[in-house]
Amino acid sequence: MGAAPVTLREIVAALGGELVGSADTPIDRIATLEAAGASAITFLSNPRYRVQLAGSAAGCVVVAPSLRNEAASRGAAIVADDPYLYFARLTQWWARRTRPAAPVGVDPSARVDPSARVHPTASIGPLAVVEAEAEIAADAVVGAQCVVGRGARIGEGTRLHARAVVAFGCTIGARGIVHSGAVIGADGFGFAPTQAGYVKIEQLGAVRIGDDVEIGANTCIDRGALDDTVIEDGVKLDNLIQIAHNVRIGRGTAIAACVGIAGSTQIGARCTVAGQAGFAGHLTIADDVHIAAKATVMRSIAKPGVYSGYFPLDENRAFEKNAATLRQLYALRDRVRALERSLGNAGDAAESP
Amino acid sequence: MGAAPVTLREIVAALGGELVGSADTPIDRIATLEAAGASAITFLSNPRYRVQLAGSAAGCVVVAPSLRNEAASRGAAIVADDPYLYFARLTQWWARRTRPAAPVGVDPSARVDPSARVHPTASIGPLAVVEAEAEIAADAVVGAQCVVGRGARIGEGTRLHARAVVAFGCTIGARGIVHSGAVIGADGFGFAPTQAGYVKIEQLGAVRIGDDVEIGANTCIDRGALDDTVIEDGVKLDNLIQIAHNVRIGRGTAIAACVGIAGSTQIGARCTVAGQAGFAGHLTIADDVHIAAKATVMRSIAKPGVYSGYFPLDENRAFEKNAATLRQLYALRDRVRALERSLGNAGDAAESP
Amino acid sequence: MGAAPVTLREIVAALGGELVGSADTPIDRIATLEAAGASAITFLSNPRYRVQLAGSAAGCVVVAPSLRNEAASRGAAIVADDPYLYFARLTQWWARRTRPAAPVGVDPSARVDPSARVHPTASIGPLAVVEAEAEIAADAVVGAQCVVGRGARIGEGTRLHARAVVAFGCTIGARGIVHSGAVIGADGFGFAPTQAGYVKIEQLGAVRIGDDVEIGANTCIDRGALDDTVIEDGVKLDNLIQIAHNVRIGRGTAIAACVGIAGSTQIGARCTVAGQAGFAGHLTIADDVHIAAKATVMRSIAKPGVYSGYFPLDENRAFEKNAATLRQLYALRDRVRALERSLGNAGDAAESP
Repeated sequence: MGAAPVTLREIVAALGGELVGSADTPIDRIATLEAAGASAITFLSNPRYRVQLAGSAAGCVVVAPSLRNEAASRGAAIVADDPYLYFARLTQWWARRTRPAAPVGVDPSARVDPSARVHPTASIGPLAVVEAEAEIAADAVVGAQCVVGRGARIGEGTRLHARAVVAFGCTIGARGIVHSGAVIGADGFGFAPTQAGYVKIEQLGAVRIGDDVEIGANTCIDRGALDDTVIEDGVKLDNLIQIAHNVRIGRGTAIAACVGIAGSTQIGARCTVAGQAGFAGHLTIADDVHIAAKATVMRSIAKPGVYSGYFPLDENRAFEKNAATLRQLYALRDRVRALERSLGNAGDAAESP
Repeated sequence: MGAAPVTLREIVAALGGELVGSADTPIDRIATLEAAGASAITFLSNPRYRVQLAGSAAGCVVVAPSLRNEAASRGAAIVADDPYLYFARLTQWWARRTRPAAPVGVDPSARVDPSARVHPTASIGPLAVVEAEAEIAADAVVGAQCVVGRGARIGEGTRLHARAVVAFGCTIGARGIVHSGAVIGADGFGFAPTQAGYVKIEQLGAVRIGDDVEIGANTCIDRGALDDTVIEDGVKLDNLIQIAHNVRIGRGTAIAACVGIAGSTQIGARCTVAGQAGFAGHLTIADDVHIAAKATVMRSIAKPGVYSGYFPLDENRAFEKNAATLRQLYALRDRVRALERSLGNAGDAAESP
Repeated sequence: MGAAPVTLREIVAALGGELVGSADTPIDRIATLEAAGASAITFLSNPRYRVQLAGSAAGCVVVAPSLRNEAASRGAAIVADDPYLYFARLTQWWARRTRPAAPVGVDPSARVDPSARVHPTASIGPLAVVEAEAEIAADAVVGAQCVVGRGARIGEGTRLHARAVVAFGCTIGARGIVHSGAVIGADGFGFAPTQAGYVKIEQLGAVRIGDDVEIGANTCIDRGALDDTVIEDGVKLDNLIQIAHNVRIGRGTAIAACVGIAGSTQIGARCTVAGQAGFAGHLTIADDVHIAAKATVMRSIAKPGVYSGYFPLDENRAFEKNAATLRQLYALRDRVRALERSLGNAGDAAESP
């Protein structure tokens, strides 16, 4: 990701922070503390990497005020209250500087229905489809081969990467990002079972997505059965996530890849869900709940905290023996209980039923 | 999902059922029992919601004959033998009424090979690709940007939503639905291992899908290695499912999102598989087997029933302690056995080996 | 998959091996040992199917030298050192023979930027998009509706199936295969958390993929945050896999469907990972490690071997009881310890802490 160099002066002019050292230091990349060379800027946010600071060859290190002197004794530095946030903002500035903006206007190969309202500052990429009465707001970007369905709405400054689908009637707020292959608004999975087989319940709701939401590649958010599926402001979804009909994800919640959430479950605000976790349907998860990787959430959670549940990994031979015993665990408990009774031990009495 | 109102007369004329109350009641939406207002129709199928019936503000409630009087004392009602099925049929009628039909014919931006046979009543959407010798039957809909490969066949009335792929030689029966991003007929994952690396086994089979099958968004069904992968009539597949080569899914089986089924496994008829469950390859699962969420199916199942297996969720601290102990479970059993021997207990003798 | 027949003479001329029996035997399909009829060729690589050999109706069986006489007494045979490898090569030859080659050149409906370098022998399919400065090498195939981003590079003979995305700046080596719906180079999932919500870290790295790599349908490989995500030569990835930013997958490793690998994890060479397994971030997995299905890998693995971890499946009733007891396992261990103390048993002393 090498690029035309900038000076530290330019960086501080754009992003703030206190510059220590030469403002003329040329920078042509952002790098990790370990890999940074003389023309790279890096950052130190985690105190446990502090020992690497003195030895870093970086042209500039972004540090917290507490490390000002330590960093200055090494070379150029930018002092910022939150170096990791500074780094994030620096990557955004860098991306704007080095990546061409999407061309404003409608690519001639795109298929835009005459009744769609496309803002003049929006960008519609090659071979995209924008259906009747869809609305594309100012500065929005609809990438190559995207589909925006009938009556769907893409908010200001929101970007759909190549080949995203936003189905009819679904809406996305401002400043969102939807990655390639994401499908927003496919039918929820609903059927009436009969002797003759399943009868489809048409999904008459839609998907409503707030502002500042990011949705990963090939992630699916199904439309609601009667009401809408709702993703609140500031939610971040990684790749290959399944969000079923009528789910609601609370503001500022982040969900890692390969998570599945069954129908009508409500997840609170500021939660985090690690990869491959799954939720049964019709649950209510409180705010500030943190679910660890691969967890299976089968009941509602009312109390904030960290919840885990995965089978611990082991060498296969040991696993096989432990797993076999696990299938007799209840019987084992009964045997322990019997032993306790033989000995008149108190353990049994203390056991929850 | 508000729409132009209809009267209960129109609904009963279309769908049957016994109308109790005013046939002129205007209805502009279908809603849940809880959310339904005076212009909404709702239904009561689960007896445990019966207590909500009297208090519902719904314009009309669809109920079973046993609730006829109870519903009538509240206001308008439709009496139907299976209210949930009636609701399903009502959503279908509603969708047909409120959603524009796909335009018949081939969109000028679609790329249809001259040797493809597209029925005059079929609809081929913008920027779709239909390759040589493919066949699109009557009333089928190939959505925007779909790809129908060489010699593939899409049955009567089947609908491919935007951006579905049906690869060469694969076939789908009548009245099917394929959601966006689904990939039918990618190569199965087959290689001959050698010292120099894996050597690809070309997948010479295809995918054969029966009638009335629904396939979720971004779901993948791989083509067979030599014979075909087969999905029988009436199967319903949710989103992000992986079905490997030469799998066979029996008639009327429903599979929830994020399930993975490895190669050559056969699943019976009328099974249900909950989310994130997984199946090893070369298994045979009987009819009427129900697999719970996140289960890992490593052996064939000959007996109908409900099968489960997931690590129970817990607060992280408790989980950590239990998981650590789980890695010593086999040793713990040996200790119990030793205790039983010390005491001359009978438990050990009763234990399965 | 029936096709115009060939003779065994033609097969041996193309692929080698010692022919036993009539070179004029006509063959019109490749089949399993069980299903093969008189016009089919099959193979026997697994000794446990040896008993089926005598009864097979196959026109020809590919066998190892040790089975030469046994096969010859039955009918025509091809003797090859590695029958499974011979079978793999036969499927490749068969596919080349029976499937039309992608047409050389750029389809008129494709959108290729004038600054892109497309080799004259490459094939660009209908409605594909090739952005500025992208490079498509000799004999590469970019399928229908694929997107190759700005400055991306597709190596010699690599095939992108319909609707694959290779985002800007990403590179794929020679002889690769990318299946439909795969997304290479979406943003990694990186944010700086602040009181006001998550702030995006732009992902400034790319994805670098070696030679002879196969990537399954709807699989996602995210671009790196600062450095690149790297997939080494000969890696085989199945469908619906998530590979996060800055992961590195070592040479010749094969990963089954629905696996998730979190950020910056490094997996060694010649590993295998079974379906639905998951890896936490920042781990290092040694060469020749084999991870079983659904395993949760939360720590680095330094030693080659087979590692497993999944909750064993059981009938639901038994599962419920064992799972409930599992939540008290640590307490159960304490009770066993107390019993041992009561009896003066040695088990407790031997227990790891």
